Amino acid sequence: MSRFSKAVLSSLGLLIVTGSLWARPSPARGEKAIRAVLDSQVEAWNRGEVNTFMQSYWISDKTEFVGSSGIFRGWQAVLERYRKTYPDRRAMGTVQFSDLEITLLSPNAALVVGKYLLEREADHPSGVFTLVFRKFPEGWRIINDHTSVVHKP
Amino acid sequence: MSRFSKAVLSSLGLLIVTGSLWARPSPARGEKAIRAVLDSQVEAWNRGEVNTFMQSYWISDKTEFVGSSGIFRGWQAVLERYRKTYPDRRAMGTVQFSDLEITLLSPNAALVVGKYLLEREADHPSGVFTLVFRKFPEGWRIINDHTSVVHKP
Repeated sequence: MSRFSKAVLSSLGLLIVTGSLWARPSPARGEKAIRAVLDSQVEAWNRGEVNTFMQSYWISDKTEFVGSSGIFRGWQAVLERYRKTYPDRRAMGTVQFSDLEITLLSPNAALVVGKYLLEREADHPSGVFTLVFRKFPEGWRIINDHTSVVHKP
Repeated sequence: MSRFSKAVLSSLGLLIVTGSLWARPSPARGEKAIRAVLDSQVEAWNRGEVNTFMQSYWISDKTEFVGSSGIFRGWQAVLERYRKTYPDRRAMGTVQFSDLEITLLSPNAALVVGKYLLEREADHPSGVFTLVFRKFPEGWRIINDHTSVVHKP
């Protein structure tokens, strides 16, 4: 093989490697992985396991929960908010998510909009959420959760 | 120059071109451009120009406004919500944004968390927002706005 052919082949090889790095995280795969994180979150909540539920959030001081009580900064503060707002199984009830819209913003970031419904003995509050996910070595995690209760007319 | 040197140089050239494509939209430049969009939004609001204010949103059926009234889908629906909620200058008052946190998620996507304060004759409502921006050929635009009123204790 001539040196020239080798050079062409090596450039081609570089292009292929670069191309496959780009193509690897397909939108469909990202969406599927994010749905799995949300499913595991719902299952954890419905078993009353707030700590497991919280594993879907990025364990970082930068993780935020935003809502009508303001901004909670840091994974620990978000956990404490959940513990305070939902102190026991009765307060937690069971949750379901619906109308999930997942938009991949890049191979490593996504926006999720959806609705939640809590079924509790005393009431059935529901609302909407906007989640921003990032993909970390450990998987897709929520870096920002903005949730609003929607009061029915 | 040997063929081998030429091949090395051509591979290097390819790497440099690829590198500069990656580097072009720097985080600092993205952040600055997003701040400029938010500044122009505040200025438009304070002149009572809802239509100009709305130019900061992506003109698309996919643009969303999320809050305690649920999900408004599409640029037109978001505009109509603003017109209904703030029918005149008195209802609009003047707005200011504060505590802006801009996180670049990719060269073409960003998350912005911040606070707003409306100064009106009758009251001074305030709250928090989470904005997702994407960069389009026309510039950075909001694709999702989740806003919550924060009721002071």
